[in-house]
This record gives sequence, C-alpha cells and structure tokens, in this order.
Amino acid sequence: MERVHRHPVAEMLDLHFLPFCIFLGGLGFVCVAFVSAWCQHWRGGFALDGSTKMFNWHPVLMVTGMVVLYGAAALVYRLPPAWRGPKFPWKVLHGALALAAFLLAVLGLVAVFRFHNNHGTPNMYSLHSWVGLATVLLFSCQWVAGFSAFLLPWAPAWLRALYKPVHVFFGSTILMLSLASCVSGINEKLFFSLKNGTTEYKLLPAEAVFANMLGLLILLFGVLVLGALARPSWKRPDADSPDSRQPLLTAER
Amino acid sequence: MERVHRHPVAEMLDLHFLPFCIFLGGLGFVCVAFVSAWCQHWRGGFALDGSTKMFNWHPVLMVTGMVVLYGAAALVYRLPPAWRGPKFPWKVLHGALALAAFLLAVLGLVAVFRFHNNHGTPNMYSLHSWVGLATVLLFSCQWVAGFSAFLLPWAPAWLRALYKPVHVFFGSTILMLSLASCVSGINEKLFFSLKNGTTEYKLLPAEAVFANMLGLLILLFGVLVLGALARPSWKRPDADSPDSRQPLLTAER
Repeated sequence: MERVHRHPVAEMLDLHFLPFCIFLGGLGFVCVAFVSAWCQHWRGGFALDGSTKMFNWHPVLMVTGMVVLYGAAALVYRLPPAWRGPKFPWKVLHGALALAAFLLAVLGLVAVFRFHNNHGTPNMYSLHSWVGLATVLLFSCQWVAGFSAFLLPWAPAWLRALYKPVHVFFGSTILMLSLASCVSGINEKLFFSLKNGTTEYKLLPAEAVFANMLGLLILLFGVLVLGALARPSWKRPDADSPDSRQPLLTAER
Repeated sequence: MERVHRHPVAEMLDLHFLPFCIFLGGLGFVCVAFVSAWCQHWRGGFALDGSTKMFNWHPVLMVTGMVVLYGAAALVYRLPPAWRGPKFPWKVLHGALALAAFLLAVLGLVAVFRFHNNHGTPNMYSLHSWVGLATVLLFSCQWVAGFSAFLLPWAPAWLRALYKPVHVFFGSTILMLSLASCVSGINEKLFFSLKNGTTEYKLLPAEAVFANMLGLLILLFGVLVLGALARPSWKRPDADSPDSRQPLLTAER
C-alpha cells in the first residue's frame, strides 16, 4: 500500500488522542460543576419533594447523562487500548456507560414530570420538551438495538455490518439532539426564572452570564466529541468493519 | 484493490443520492413554507418598520439562510455531476450558495436588532442570541477562510490539504449550531408570544403545535444533511484529498 506523504506542518499540528481526551474529561467535569453550581447557588439547591428544588435535578441529570456520560460512552472505541485485543470488553464498557447515561436521563425526566404534576403544569408542550423526549426515546431504541445486535451472540455478521453505520449515525445524531435540547432548556429556564421580582434576563445578571456560559461549554463539549468521532485517524482500524472499507469501495467505482 | 463483498440485503437497502436529494429539497421547501406560514398566519405578517412584523423576517431569513441554503451549499460536492471533470465550477457554486446563505443570515440579524432597538429591548442577552451570533460569526470566518484557501489561486496545495478537514469539520459544526439556535429561538418566541391575552403555550394551541412541528422538521432537515455529509460512499472520490486517504493511512499503522 502506498505510503502517503504528509507535509511537516501537518505532522507538527497533528492532534493526539490522549491530551485531547484529558482536556475533554476536564471540560465534561466543568460542565457538570457549572450546571450543579447554577442550580445550587441561584436556583435554591436540590430536594426530592416535587418543588423547584426537585426540578433542579433535571438540568444536572440531563447534562451529566445525555451529554457528558453519553460522550464518554461514544468515545470508548477511540481509546488506543481499545484498538488492540478482543473487542468484547470494550463493547461491554460502551454499553454500560450508555446505560448509565440513559438511567440518569430517565431520572432527569422523572424530576421534571414530578415537578410539573405537583404544580398542575401540563407536561410536553414546549418544543424543548418535544425535542428532549424524542432524544431520550431515540436513545432507548439505539441502546436496545445496539445491545441486541452487538452484545447478544445471535446476530449474524452481515446484520451487524449492515446495522453498524446506522448505529454510528444515530449515535452522533442523538448527541446533537441532546445539545439542542440543553440549549433550548437553559434558555427557557432563564426566561422563566429571571423575571419580575428578580433581575430580568434581559438585564443580564450574573446568573444569566453564568448559565449562558454553561450553554456554550456544553456545546463545546458536544462539538469536540462529534469531531473526535468523525476524525478518521482516531477510528479503530477494524478489519471487519464496513466503515473502514467504504472509501476503498468508493475509490474503485 | 480487493473487491469487498456486500450482503444482498445491504445492496437492496442501499440509498441513492438522487432520490434522497429530491426528498431533502422538498423537506427544505416545507421548512421555509412552515416558518413563513407561522409568521404570516399567527404572528401578523411582514413589514420593514421595526415592529414585530419586522421581527418576523428574523426566523424566516435564519431558517432559509442558515439551514436550507446552508445545507444546499454543503451538499454541492455530493452531486454526482460534481464527481467528474474540473472541480472549480463546483467550488464557485459552493461558495456562492454559502455567500447567499450568509447574506440572508445578516439580514435576519438586522431584522431582530432593529426590532429590539425600536422597542428599547437590549440585544444579545439570551443564550439563543449568544449561540446564534457565535454561529453567524463562525460562518463568516469559515467563508473567508474557505474563499482564501480554495478559490483564490495563491494557497499552496499543502495548506489546502491541511485546512480542508478543518473546513469540513466546521462546516458540520456550524450547521449543528444553527439547529440548536433554531430550536431555542422557536421555543423562546412561543413563550414570548403565547401568554396572557392569547392562549398560553402550555395549553398547546394550534400555533404551538405548528411551530413545534416546524422545529422538528428543521432538525430532521439538518440531521439528514449531516448524515449525507458523513456518508463515505457519497463523498467525491478525490485523488488529492487527504479525507479519502486517511483510512488507508490508519489501516497501515
């Protein structure tokens, strides 16, 4: 196979996965810390009593589950140790992290539904709620289909090969929908909370700046995960994966 | 080069670009029709007088520019005729469509700034506005950098090869940020408009269902564009593109 010549500047600027991964882990931690600090410091903290303190679990659980843990699950196969040896343990880790992310998301939904029901507020009317619930439902289908196809032993190889690009596509799509849900949710919550009685959102009090920054950090985290997933040189060189073969197929057409 | 065997079911389910493209074009048209109908039928129509009728240009121009035209620009190189012959005319088409999208976005910003200024409302306080402006600013950098590197003659081949994956990455990222901006913007506008005096958002009047559906259609359009961009077999087989080579590089490591 021909060795492709790369320009020295390209070699120099080449990004390595490990430092990127450490930065991303730190950024994920900052996202969780920011959303927790927002709810603790400005929104009254946490409780399980159906009050706004119960609602506060919603953003924390959603950001932790649907963004940070989800992102970690998505990147499992990019870890260099996952490139060597049997794939099965890495599949189990991928599935377990995704399941943990899903469980946090379900608890996050319970928090907001219990809060709404306690206050006589209807559920599922805003675009945020439609996009958010659709995202979690898609995620549940993705998990069940992924588990059935890749972890249970009975799926034939051709079905796995057929389903894998679909799983990969929905993996990125669900994260993207999570990001749209987070941005619309933070925006909506700030309009709800910062009005008459407290400093209005439009006067940009400290809470608004802080929560807007949280929104941007979540977007940065998600975009970096999506970028890492799309980067060809970070993909596991998988002999039986249709992903790594597709360009060869294309080239010979 | 080895011919990779594909399962007959995979062959049968193989998606062709042209029918997909026709469907996507129809969907883009529906998005523009929906956002126009929302503003015309429920929000009082259009004017250039700094009133809410001026604001109404904002969603229409943003969805048309930053989502539909942007998506069309992004997919230019996936058109089968663009695979053959000189690349330059397709580059010009790509750049021209992107420029048209950018100009609509700038007009969309003018509409909302003029509306805010006329009503003494501060600009740039909500997370929606932060994400939206960041998206348009990123887009302006992307256009200038793309024009300088790929359309002007003086960029050396190694710089083009180095910048191309960055351009591709930010291309998808900007569309994703546009989608998050659209969802948060529609959500915010419905909370603003549907309150005391009219039917509240939470009672889900016809307008709310219609505009929520608009949000979902925009997401569907954007996700399909991102999926089409990521699909390896729809990429232009470009001999001097580092994209199409990368998996070869990976495989030989």
